[in-house]
Amino acid sequence: MGIILHELVGTDQGRPFSPHCWKTVMSLAHKGLPFDRNRVSFRDIPKLENGYSSKVPVIRDQDQLVADSFEIALYLEDRHPDRPSLFKGEGGRAMARFVEGYSQMILHPFINVVVLMAVHNLLDAPNQAYFRESREKIFGRKLEDVAAMRDAKREAFTASLEPIRKMLLSQPFIGGEGPLFADYIVFGAFQWVRVLTPYQLFDRGDPVQDWFERCLDLHGGVAREIKAAV
Amino acid sequence: MGIILHELVGTDQGRPFSPHCWKTVMSLAHKGLPFDRNRVSFRDIPKLENGYSSKVPVIRDQDQLVADSFEIALYLEDRHPDRPSLFKGEGGRAMARFVEGYSQMILHPFINVVVLMAVHNLLDAPNQAYFRESREKIFGRKLEDVAAMRDAKREAFTASLEPIRKMLLSQPFIGGEGPLFADYIVFGAFQWVRVLTPYQLFDRGDPVQDWFERCLDLHGGVAREIKAAV
Repeated sequence: MGIILHELVGTDQGRPFSPHCWKTVMSLAHKGLPFDRNRVSFRDIPKLENGYSSKVPVIRDQDQLVADSFEIALYLEDRHPDRPSLFKGEGGRAMARFVEGYSQMILHPFINVVVLMAVHNLLDAPNQAYFRESREKIFGRKLEDVAAMRDAKREAFTASLEPIRKMLLSQPFIGGEGPLFADYIVFGAFQWVRVLTPYQLFDRGDPVQDWFERCLDLHGGVAREIKAAV
Repeated sequence: MGIILHELVGTDQGRPFSPHCWKTVMSLAHKGLPFDRNRVSFRDIPKLENGYSSKVPVIRDQDQLVADSFEIALYLEDRHPDRPSLFKGEGGRAMARFVEGYSQMILHPFINVVVLMAVHNLLDAPNQAYFRESREKIFGRKLEDVAAMRDAKREAFTASLEPIRKMLLSQPFIGGEGPLFADYIVFGAFQWVRVLTPYQLFDRGDPVQDWFERCLDLHGGVAREIKAAV
């Protein structure tokens, strides 16, 4: 039996959107491991695998459960050292934590605003109620008021991509000549948008978009199988 | 004969301030290699080593010349694979480019503003003229007007350190349990400030400051030998 990936969807089962679950899809594909995707809603998560984790992704590998996309990548790397590496050494493993910090603390706050209403609108009524209550608590204001800040914040977001642009002058991937888990960390953030809304994250000709397209092409185009939102 | 490091100073020969040269000081110390520091002014650089490079750091290792702090780190790593690694593998080498992008594109713009007048004031008259002309061309406005933006930009700078804070929840250095070249990249940016001005970059209790202090302690405190500016 292959690995089972528990991942998040809304009412549309064919549109998994969680950035963290996408990191795991790409990690499993990178390792060339077969896996089945079990799609769950926000409110299903606490019941999953006897309440193993409050968040997805969670993977089941035979009798082993692992939660958290970074922990899963570390697990896959330890379990399958013979397959293509997700970190290429100790330095790469450590620095992926820095890329994670950049993605979650610099990119996610804006992307959260971009996708907010799209996520809400994709949910059924009970999940909408859960989502609205939990997110309005985090933001301290109504969802609609948060979403309205999107265009005003876009210019700062574009500037915040400069580390990626500068890095791309030296190499095609964060991982160097080929992608590593650090690429999937940032990829997940952009795929979250692509799956949920037609909002244009990138200006025309942005090399970050070229990199994103390269990631969409990876591993038989596993991430491109989900069409961009229209 | 040991390695010679050509590094930048102003009128005070005892106060090398270039962030890029500090990256190389730390790289050489990390490798445990003896080196002599040859201190030069901005206007000396074009004459150095028969015009080898328009920028410092430049190192001379016997009959080998290498310019650019990242290139020097790569050179030292290749030349001395038996000594402590600056990258810990291919992934670490690649991701150091991402950390470089973050440091130069996110941190440097603010730090440039912070240190601007201090650098100017440290130079002799001909170097001041060179510095003012070249920098006012880059900024498109008078040095004094750029420097005046410092306090208004500090809050955004503090927020831009979030990737480091998030990473420090997992490990004490960007390189993991110990420092790598990626740590020295960011260290150089903060040391630039420390050497030039008493301006407080960090809020009280910021874990980024704790990390910076750990870096100052490294390699026999080589970077602490230069007292903080008062």
